[in-house]
Amino acid sequence: MNSDASKPVLIGIDWGTSSLRAFLIGSTGQVLDSVSAPQGIMQVKDRDFDAVFHDLVGRWKTAGDLPVIASGMITSRNGWLETPYVAVPAGSKALADNLVRFETSSGKAVHFVTGMTTEHDGAPDVMRGEETQIVGAMGLGAAAGMFVMPGTHSKWISVSDARIDDYATYMTGEIFAALRGHTILGTLMKDAAFQEEGFRMGVASGLRAGAGLLHNLFHVRTMPLFGRIPEEMTADYLSGILIGSEIGAATSALAPDNVVTIVGRNDLADRYEIALDAVGFSSARAAENIVAQGHFEIAQSAGMLS
Amino acid sequence: MNSDASKPVLIGIDWGTSSLRAFLIGSTGQVLDSVSAPQGIMQVKDRDFDAVFHDLVGRWKTAGDLPVIASGMITSRNGWLETPYVAVPAGSKALADNLVRFETSSGKAVHFVTGMTTEHDGAPDVMRGEETQIVGAMGLGAAAGMFVMPGTHSKWISVSDARIDDYATYMTGEIFAALRGHTILGTLMKDAAFQEEGFRMGVASGLRAGAGLLHNLFHVRTMPLFGRIPEEMTADYLSGILIGSEIGAATSALAPDNVVTIVGRNDLADRYEIALDAVGFSSARAAENIVAQGHFEIAQSAGMLS
Repeated sequence: MNSDASKPVLIGIDWGTSSLRAFLIGSTGQVLDSVSAPQGIMQVKDRDFDAVFHDLVGRWKTAGDLPVIASGMITSRNGWLETPYVAVPAGSKALADNLVRFETSSGKAVHFVTGMTTEHDGAPDVMRGEETQIVGAMGLGAAAGMFVMPGTHSKWISVSDARIDDYATYMTGEIFAALRGHTILGTLMKDAAFQEEGFRMGVASGLRAGAGLLHNLFHVRTMPLFGRIPEEMTADYLSGILIGSEIGAATSALAPDNVVTIVGRNDLADRYEIALDAVGFSSARAAENIVAQGHFEIAQSAGMLS
Repeated sequence: MNSDASKPVLIGIDWGTSSLRAFLIGSTGQVLDSVSAPQGIMQVKDRDFDAVFHDLVGRWKTAGDLPVIASGMITSRNGWLETPYVAVPAGSKALADNLVRFETSSGKAVHFVTGMTTEHDGAPDVMRGEETQIVGAMGLGAAAGMFVMPGTHSKWISVSDARIDDYATYMTGEIFAALRGHTILGTLMKDAAFQEEGFRMGVASGLRAGAGLLHNLFHVRTMPLFGRIPEEMTADYLSGILIGSEIGAATSALAPDNVVTIVGRNDLADRYEIALDAVGFSSARAAENIVAQGHFEIAQSAGMLS
């Protein structure tokens, strides 16, 4: 271990679909400096990831000597280098063992964290990047529990014995956008401040819906049409139905005394806190920068920090 | 009763959102002539329903003397005249008692069939037009049973004692289009002939999904990504998941020896036949022109044919 905590030992990059974030990481995993850029894999001009990389890490004078680890959609088919997945259950050791070393145009080595796969009922599930965040949360002390990472494709990730046991993806965010933007359900919606009452009514409906989600969604049309909810509530009522359905399914096997840890600190995370409470689960918030901690944990497991 | 079966006694109009169909109806409810036009309520220029009506029925020389009955979205807020709903349970007598008489610019009376409403778990459901079709099916002998009307908004309608007991709407068709056209699930889809194997796999997944539909939908992405189904099957796999989910929910309280009657004779109706069979239900097809028979039954109940 390095005795000077402020001395950087690692560069970690969380490179996603729509943005990226790079971290200068100290000897206990703490973030010394970070930089964000709207250079997600779908935004990189001419797919010149090499140029973006050098531009990004060049800002740190010490970068040349530091090991680099990168996670996220950058390892997908549309990314810099497609890597295979490791299968659950897996933790930092398995991810360290499966790092994919890649040399940039300057001869700098980047170590890519592979994604993680699972299978339910004959169908595969995939994630790239979230596994590194959860490894970071485990590094900060979460040896067991359920995590939810709300978003376009929400992930529910269960952890025990300091490894990821299993996970499942729910298309909640993307389906919300498609239904709001491209079905009759969106026609009565208005931009408005968050309508918690409408959201809570939606959560209750989504939970009750069970297998009948395609039916209950029609109530987003009929409830305002019959004056049961004001039009201002309609968008949050839809949001609630989808999030309620997701939480109902994702927690169906979870004992009620479990605490669900929400990864994220934005408005969407707030919605999940409200919805989890309505379902009867306590929730907590993950620490910030768990992804940098994850880079640190994996690099350490791989012996890159010696 | 008129002794000459070929003599028209009624004009019936099924006026929907995207098209309309008018029928010249004989003394036992049979269709003597019919005309279709792409003049659904959203297509009528300047909302001049009166002009479309006169142009349409003017083709029949005897029209001036015949009573006219109309059903469908023409009685909705965006239609010619908004009418209230009657509540379930209801049959032809209740619809006849609630006909709304309206005089056109030429002094011709049009009798509008109101829609029908129900409520489940505090949320309303609505239909306009489908009730008239089911009344027609009942007039042709269906005193009891479950009907499905596949479409943008599928309706499941249960009948007993020759009246509509209850019904529920599922947004299956519209959600299919939104997911195919506006989410990542559509990106791998190709136009192809109907892929029955992929459809059946989807139906099985949709049935198993239960409350987890937002999760299973992600498999439409992962299955072709992992080579588990060819890309050509992807659209029908999605179609199967949604229809399987719908059928699972809509038949959850239905004894397995029931026959489900499918209203419709198109490709979509064929899909429902396959899916119902996969779930273990027998199916039958409703007769053609049940809507005209419905107009006849309601007009007869209302004493308009004397």
